[in-house]
Amino acid sequence: MRIAGEMLLGASSVRGAQGAMRAFDPARNLEIEPSFGMGGVVEVDCACVLAAQAFDAFRSASLDARARLLEAIADNVAALGDLLIDRAQSESALPKARLEGERARTIGQLRLFASLVREGRWCGAVLDSAQPERQPIPRSDLRARRIPLGPVAVFGASNFPLAFSVAGGDTASALAAGCPVVVKAHPAHLGTSELVGRAIQKAVADAGLPEGVFSLVIGAGNAIGEALVAHPAIKAVGFTGSRHGGIALMKIAASRHEPIPVYAEMSSVNPMFLLPAALAARGQALARGFVDSLTLGVGQFCTNPGLVIALEGPALDAFVEAAAGALETKSAQTMLTAGIAAAYRGGVDARARTPGVSRAADGAQSEAHCAGRGALFTTSATRFLANAQLQDEIFGPASLIVACADVDELLRVAEHLEGQLTATLQLDEPDYVLAARLLPTLERKAGRILANGFPTGVEVSHAMVHGGPFPATSDARTTSVGAMAIERFLRPVCYQDLPEALLPQALRDDNPLGLWRLRDGELMRR
Amino acid sequence: MRIAGEMLLGASSVRGAQGAMRAFDPARNLEIEPSFGMGGVVEVDCACVLAAQAFDAFRSASLDARARLLEAIADNVAALGDLLIDRAQSESALPKARLEGERARTIGQLRLFASLVREGRWCGAVLDSAQPERQPIPRSDLRARRIPLGPVAVFGASNFPLAFSVAGGDTASALAAGCPVVVKAHPAHLGTSELVGRAIQKAVADAGLPEGVFSLVIGAGNAIGEALVAHPAIKAVGFTGSRHGGIALMKIAASRHEPIPVYAEMSSVNPMFLLPAALAARGQALARGFVDSLTLGVGQFCTNPGLVIALEGPALDAFVEAAAGALETKSAQTMLTAGIAAAYRGGVDARARTPGVSRAADGAQSEAHCAGRGALFTTSATRFLANAQLQDEIFGPASLIVACADVDELLRVAEHLEGQLTATLQLDEPDYVLAARLLPTLERKAGRILANGFPTGVEVSHAMVHGGPFPATSDARTTSVGAMAIERFLRPVCYQDLPEALLPQALRDDNPLGLWRLRDGELMRR
Repeated sequence: MRIAGEMLLGASSVRGAQGAMRAFDPARNLEIEPSFGMGGVVEVDCACVLAAQAFDAFRSASLDARARLLEAIADNVAALGDLLIDRAQSESALPKARLEGERARTIGQLRLFASLVREGRWCGAVLDSAQPERQPIPRSDLRARRIPLGPVAVFGASNFPLAFSVAGGDTASALAAGCPVVVKAHPAHLGTSELVGRAIQKAVADAGLPEGVFSLVIGAGNAIGEALVAHPAIKAVGFTGSRHGGIALMKIAASRHEPIPVYAEMSSVNPMFLLPAALAARGQALARGFVDSLTLGVGQFCTNPGLVIALEGPALDAFVEAAAGALETKSAQTMLTAGIAAAYRGGVDARARTPGVSRAADGAQSEAHCAGRGALFTTSATRFLANAQLQDEIFGPASLIVACADVDELLRVAEHLEGQLTATLQLDEPDYVLAARLLPTLERKAGRILANGFPTGVEVSHAMVHGGPFPATSDARTTSVGAMAIERFLRPVCYQDLPEALLPQALRDDNPLGLWRLRDGELMRR
Repeated sequence: MRIAGEMLLGASSVRGAQGAMRAFDPARNLEIEPSFGMGGVVEVDCACVLAAQAFDAFRSASLDARARLLEAIADNVAALGDLLIDRAQSESALPKARLEGERARTIGQLRLFASLVREGRWCGAVLDSAQPERQPIPRSDLRARRIPLGPVAVFGASNFPLAFSVAGGDTASALAAGCPVVVKAHPAHLGTSELVGRAIQKAVADAGLPEGVFSLVIGAGNAIGEALVAHPAIKAVGFTGSRHGGIALMKIAASRHEPIPVYAEMSSVNPMFLLPAALAARGQALARGFVDSLTLGVGQFCTNPGLVIALEGPALDAFVEAAAGALETKSAQTMLTAGIAAAYRGGVDARARTPGVSRAADGAQSEAHCAGRGALFTTSATRFLANAQLQDEIFGPASLIVACADVDELLRVAEHLEGQLTATLQLDEPDYVLAARLLPTLERKAGRILANGFPTGVEVSHAMVHGGPFPATSDARTTSVGAMAIERFLRPVCYQDLPEALLPQALRDDNPLGLWRLRDGELMRR
């Protein structure tokens, strides 16, 4: 398969005529062939209309057909082999092993959703029997199931060119729900996007499904994305990226004639609390683990530990010293894009100039292009509580350690936090009493609470929550990673006294799909 | 219990000092004592701060304590006896029997949510076992449950002074989820609101729960409601009312620093399709049933059948004639408020002047104050497709019959519809083929699809969906009636490797609450 620089509008490959752009290799500091033709509102409209036309047929295909589509996409992505890994490496500067791991995660994610589709609990089947004898009025037969929302617009993440891009978690969960998908290719990995897009396009065609189940559009600037979110055929949006970008899409979605849900995963500093007993007993090991988590992937994770909170004193001083020492051994590495590297350096410089903030350590210099060099800062809780900007995410390997005078101040810092994807507790048994006081606050602030771990590394499983209150995401009721991500794209429909012949299979008396169903308030598999 | 004209701010009763207002008896055309002191942003802030302070304690109370609160509210509402019914009747002009039925529904709704709270499926407990031996990296222990969003603002409906007001479905489902509630009293039933509010206030106090679990504020105009939705402590909004009012709240919620979900149930014309065989066989009976549904409660239901769609021809002509005859026997009745009656008459007059719309019948005149008189219009599908205003709801006993030239045009009319709470099919067995063609469209358009019934009368049960795509509601993913309404006020939180001693009960190894839980992908009750 070759990269042609084309958009995929249903079954067609179309070269956009609104100018051209190339991907960029940040490690080698040069553009990569071929050029991509950019599209505009015409191509967005074409993709969205095809998606709307495909919707009823796609959502009424059998659960097995939908599951097989997801598995075929997984197979096709795997079959791209080193072509995909090499291209993704050129476009992102991420190491080959990391990209291979990310490909495995992408494939595993598609297979997880395939198994979910077949199992069918997502249908949410509920049956309430008629009560013809009820007084004063009879009760009708009522049955509910969930159906997909409609075509979904997906905006991939720069930092996960496979697992959170064209065939990533948003696409997999939307297709699993029965929603056609229109992806806007991330300009930082155009070639990777086209390769994966063609893998999906082929899977759709091989399955005999309507072409509009999947499209991929390309454009520069914000215009094409805005047109996509504003298009009447689009019924939900999945986005992973900056707070600024997410909020812009939320505003467009809210100002449509028909407002639609936006699932934007945006920004988080992922506070880590070092509780006193753990800090005293294991400060050196915690410092090493923290710096490893902080610098993993050049800090380019939504769950990067950008904030550390502890009681002031010798144990914290020792932690800072150990963390500083560890960070100074880590060399600056190439970041995903020149823009991200520049924004990171600007963010670090601004923080260094912030009154009351001290620089505890820098990572080692290197010759790498577009490099991000670790940065560790310290401040007091008083300063932190007084300056909201100290909660802003600096996307990259920078973190801020906040020293609290006492437990009350530490609790105030916790209460002061904005919404987060994660919050971490480093704790030993003597810390449990304090942890129990912190937990209610952390539950209100974060989507995932970790003990004695580090927040980077997000498992794709049933219980995962990669979400959290604003500004971590636009919708705290949801997760963008894990099985529960499918819930975002469903809505309930109730059928009252509909003849058995017209009922969807999920709601027929004999339960032909073998679903878990709620019958007259009791959960059962019949 | 006497009506004092006061707001209820937690455990306190406070007379507002921002002017005074009285309730109005539309049937007798006079104001009712006593006067109510109106509040402003100070009282809103007080209620919201109390709610935020109460939140952690309320959500961590036992499931049984929360269920008993709901049951105590039900008991206290029942104990108000005729005092409540008489006051509600004065304020709404609704018949006593209707209000007694509505009280039974209100009490039943509270008890349904009490049973749901105890059963605990709403916790959404999910447990993924650790896999310490997994390669290349071990898997952590991951457990998720759902917690309440936080304090909820509730705006009651004019047309359900009991079942969708102070202790109505929004309040019951929010309290069931563990959310404190701040209600803005509907100005049309201030006395009813205070009586029910005191019933809740007493139940909260008797349960020993924090006072901020419930507050009731009173104000004129939109300012107090806007302040409530804008308050940082409020994390979700429940609203039942006009499209205009709902959209205004959506805009406020979307423009907050932290946007929050709004569950607004707004407007719907509830299309009813008369399919050919049923129309031919049962046109007379359908016409009588339709007119009974149309005029029930002076047409003041969200699910009032405001649109009828059928193929033109003698069978439809006979239906129109029969419906006209039936409507002419129905006398005009007092509507809920003078404002609603005036808006209804204005809407009917405007429709009568619309080109291409004919008046088929009027209800009978009467001497009633603030009366709404039935109105039946007809038009062609061509006109209907060309004029979006013909889809606008006229709140009251008015309906529009749309005659389609053929099946294709009928399908086009269906596709042209805005989002609806309900869609109804009148069908016999020969109609099933056409019904099967219509159903995919109706599923995309409506939250509930009925066969051979009428949409008024919304059952409170597990399978009920009283929701639907915009503009029927602001959030098609939800329902405001029935057990699923609790889902609106929950969000998931994941716990990674949290020590057993710190885990919430719902997620402990031995399942002390006896919940249904998803363990490693399998649903089980252990």
